[in-house]
Amino acid sequence: MPQLYSFGLGIGTTNSNGEWLEVYYPQPLLEPGEDISNAVCQALNHSEGNQAITLDKDKLTALADALESVHAELAALARRFQESKRPTVATLLATDAAPSSVPEGYLKLHMLSHRLVKPHGTNLTGLFGVLPNVAWTNQGAIDIKELPERQLQARLNDEVLEVACVDKFPKMSNYVVPGGVRVAHTARVRLGAHLGEGTTVMHEGFVNFNAGTEGPGMIEGRISAGVMIGAGSDLGGSSSTMGTLSGGGKLINGVGKECLIGANAGIGIPLGDRCIVEAGLYVTAGTKVAMLDSDGKVAAYVKARELAGKSDLLFWRNSQTGAVECKTNLASFELNEELHKNN
Amino acid sequence: MPQLYSFGLGIGTTNSNGEWLEVYYPQPLLEPGEDISNAVCQALNHSEGNQAITLDKDKLTALADALESVHAELAALARRFQESKRPTVATLLATDAAPSSVPEGYLKLHMLSHRLVKPHGTNLTGLFGVLPNVAWTNQGAIDIKELPERQLQARLNDEVLEVACVDKFPKMSNYVVPGGVRVAHTARVRLGAHLGEGTTVMHEGFVNFNAGTEGPGMIEGRISAGVMIGAGSDLGGSSSTMGTLSGGGKLINGVGKECLIGANAGIGIPLGDRCIVEAGLYVTAGTKVAMLDSDGKVAAYVKARELAGKSDLLFWRNSQTGAVECKTNLASFELNEELHKNN
Amino acid sequence: MPQLYSFGLGIGTTNSNGEWLEVYYPQPLLEPGEDISNAVCQALNHSEGNQAITLDKDKLTALADALESVHAELAALARRFQESKRPTVATLLATDAAPSSVPEGYLKLHMLSHRLVKPHGTNLTGLFGVLPNVAWTNQGAIDIKELPERQLQARLNDEVLEVACVDKFPKMSNYVVPGGVRVAHTARVRLGAHLGEGTTVMHEGFVNFNAGTEGPGMIEGRISAGVMIGAGSDLGGSSSTMGTLSGGGKLINGVGKECLIGANAGIGIPLGDRCIVEAGLYVTAGTKVAMLDSDGKVAAYVKARELAGKSDLLFWRNSQTGAVECKTNLASFELNEELHKNN
Repeated sequence: MPQLYSFGLGIGTTNSNGEWLEVYYPQPLLEPGEDISNAVCQALNHSEGNQAITLDKDKLTALADALESVHAELAALARRFQESKRPTVATLLATDAAPSSVPEGYLKLHMLSHRLVKPHGTNLTGLFGVLPNVAWTNQGAIDIKELPERQLQARLNDEVLEVACVDKFPKMSNYVVPGGVRVAHTARVRLGAHLGEGTTVMHEGFVNFNAGTEGPGMIEGRISAGVMIGAGSDLGGSSSTMGTLSGGGKLINGVGKECLIGANAGIGIPLGDRCIVEAGLYVTAGTKVAMLDSDGKVAAYVKARELAGKSDLLFWRNSQTGAVECKTNLASFELNEELHKNN
Repeated sequence: MPQLYSFGLGIGTTNSNGEWLEVYYPQPLLEPGEDISNAVCQALNHSEGNQAITLDKDKLTALADALESVHAELAALARRFQESKRPTVATLLATDAAPSSVPEGYLKLHMLSHRLVKPHGTNLTGLFGVLPNVAWTNQGAIDIKELPERQLQARLNDEVLEVACVDKFPKMSNYVVPGGVRVAHTARVRLGAHLGEGTTVMHEGFVNFNAGTEGPGMIEGRISAGVMIGAGSDLGGSSSTMGTLSGGGKLINGVGKECLIGANAGIGIPLGDRCIVEAGLYVTAGTKVAMLDSDGKVAAYVKARELAGKSDLLFWRNSQTGAVECKTNLASFELNEELHKNN
Repeated sequence: MPQLYSFGLGIGTTNSNGEWLEVYYPQPLLEPGEDISNAVCQALNHSEGNQAITLDKDKLTALADALESVHAELAALARRFQESKRPTVATLLATDAAPSSVPEGYLKLHMLSHRLVKPHGTNLTGLFGVLPNVAWTNQGAIDIKELPERQLQARLNDEVLEVACVDKFPKMSNYVVPGGVRVAHTARVRLGAHLGEGTTVMHEGFVNFNAGTEGPGMIEGRISAGVMIGAGSDLGGSSSTMGTLSGGGKLINGVGKECLIGANAGIGIPLGDRCIVEAGLYVTAGTKVAMLDSDGKVAAYVKARELAGKSDLLFWRNSQTGAVECKTNLASFELNEELHKNN
């Protein structure tokens, strides 16, 4: 029997047709190893492939019994699930194939936000097509087709039905808040974001799924889908990282270590380490950049895309000539110590 | 008896003095036609003008009976309203006059968000003066003057009183979510926004009242009051459309079809179709633009306001000279197909 | 017995170890005067220093009795606190020393948001270190360590546990909404913000703690920690004020009266009165600025930091040469009258 790629015991929400809208996995596992894989597969009669198995009380008992000696915590979770009237599911991924169901998609998003894998570390092909559009409310996830009737009924009942989000992706914080982070406004971080320890996402920060930070870092700008920010790098307020979903093309954008993207700045190319982009400057792949020598004279002109991934660069717009210039970053910049040590 | 311009059967919230704070219309009607107009006006003894009539159980019965044969759904709604202890109202607009009460103002905002009219399609003159400032909370709409006592009492009762918004306008999604849209963070779309089918408003997107999209489109920037975005146009993250309320003057700003406003870019002039504004560039009405010929040479200098409404323009800032330049947009750009087809 | 610097009667939340997570002071006092100081200190046996005293029913009775003749409202508050099962605290600050506990820190944040002091008007040294990171939820403040178990239990119970914020600072509006303001999206204004009367903070606006406005003003940009905006000044959408926490250095940034910072613009220097920064332009301290004379000719080049605090300046980037230019602002600009008179 093959070892599993991933396993999750989830509790979630279905619509009135019994179709999954979302699944919460309190403790997802990556490559759980032979003992757990065997216990789970035997208890659920799973032989091969990726599968999401809806659980009833008998299956939960079988799972709990099988897991008792190999993963006591998961066994306890299976027993607690029995107390609940909500639908539960066991999702077994034999391989890292493209997700083919809501439970599979949610398990992969959990793996990212639980830091079990890094962005681009699990196969998310076709995820948009798998996930339904959901109304996320204070009464839980609601099928978008069932929303109008629910809204009317709530009003008649003198209740408030707050629709916080209408989207395929929920906010991360309602599923997991990884250790050592602050997220000042959680609606800005999607489930599937990867926030490294020591990351602070301020109110203006944003982190898409399959994107994130190594940590530590102060994120006040937008981390687009697919973009990873290295350790010690800060994104200034409203700064932009052009992602593949936003027209950034096939080059995977990203930021290395100890970089600073200024407020209202943006990048269309991946940066190496210790780079600085001046506040207000947007460097696109097509920007022609004047490379300055140590005397501040123009040594060459290059397209920004040729600088992709290079380190120790300082980009700014010459305030007298309007030219975008770049030199090797000699200036050190200090992250705010008080902020970072109190994450 | 004249036909009505609009009719709505609403259920809402009043303050402790019985003054309306907000009204929810599950099914607003535009120009409902002779039969419905007659049924409603006779049942409520309405002869002329615009009027909001508070409903008691008898009036609801009269309305339901009168509507039974001409609009069974509205008749059913009137009967369901009888079950509720919340205040209900029938709002009859004989003409498209400036709104003179909260129920009238809310009916017009609903008409926009229900796509019954487009931005600038209904008279909103003086709306700011008609709508009260309200605390929007998880316990419903609260008069701002009554908020401190409610906050204290909630604390004493061991309840959480979440004040999500203090504003004249509520969020759209708590009133209606039109078909075929996603709104990743609903606090960013005011009631009175018009979102066409296929519109995705991402976390950084914003849509004011009396503004919106034809759809489809990916909105990650700000659609100011009065601004309409054509079909197939995308607004990049934090991009700005200068509206009349924000100092943009009397010229109605807007964006045509299949345009792309880059991230952190902005426009102070209306664009025609298939225009592109480079990421990070703000084109104000007063910007002097160098018009390039097909050889890339400057053919003329024009103020951007002279380009208002023109199509097939590509704006960018020359990264070597700092000059704002424009040429006819020959490059085609593709919207992200996967995103758009899964709205 | 010395008069108190500040006094607050609070009701709050503790974690499972009895440690304070947050405190709500319905009516904080600044320099309450001799009679109140004496009444409070005697009732609580307080002799000197800054102290947060957890209250039981006996102490609440003693406080209420002592306050009856000198501050009837506070006395009534003390009696109402007796009805509640939540923990209550009396916080006495003899001096404006650095806050040394959660109740002290929260009292100071309340003083700012209640407009008892202005930004920089009370000592907040070391506040980041004093405040715990808290999960702010629809079930109240939750210790971040206790969150995972609470999330699981909520799911099992078929409840929604909404985690709105994971931060040291809560949103202001859940503690106080000062008179005459609108805050379109309250998650963007931290407790400790100071919003003057007539301030509207739009959806894109942001106000950090120890920062704010004199009012009136339309705030659609970000007011960083430590930054104060003068009366009648507007911040355009996504505009940025570089704060000391964001790398702005030791110079206290700020904006004088009747200024306009355009959309997507930013400042790294404090402005005087009646200054305008063109939409999309970021003026950092190091920007070299061409100063124009009345004929529009360059009279001198200066670093922007030399212009710090000066009035009547108009900054823009020359759209033909890319140079940052500045002249004395002769153009008057009108705030939108309808908006401002309806705050």
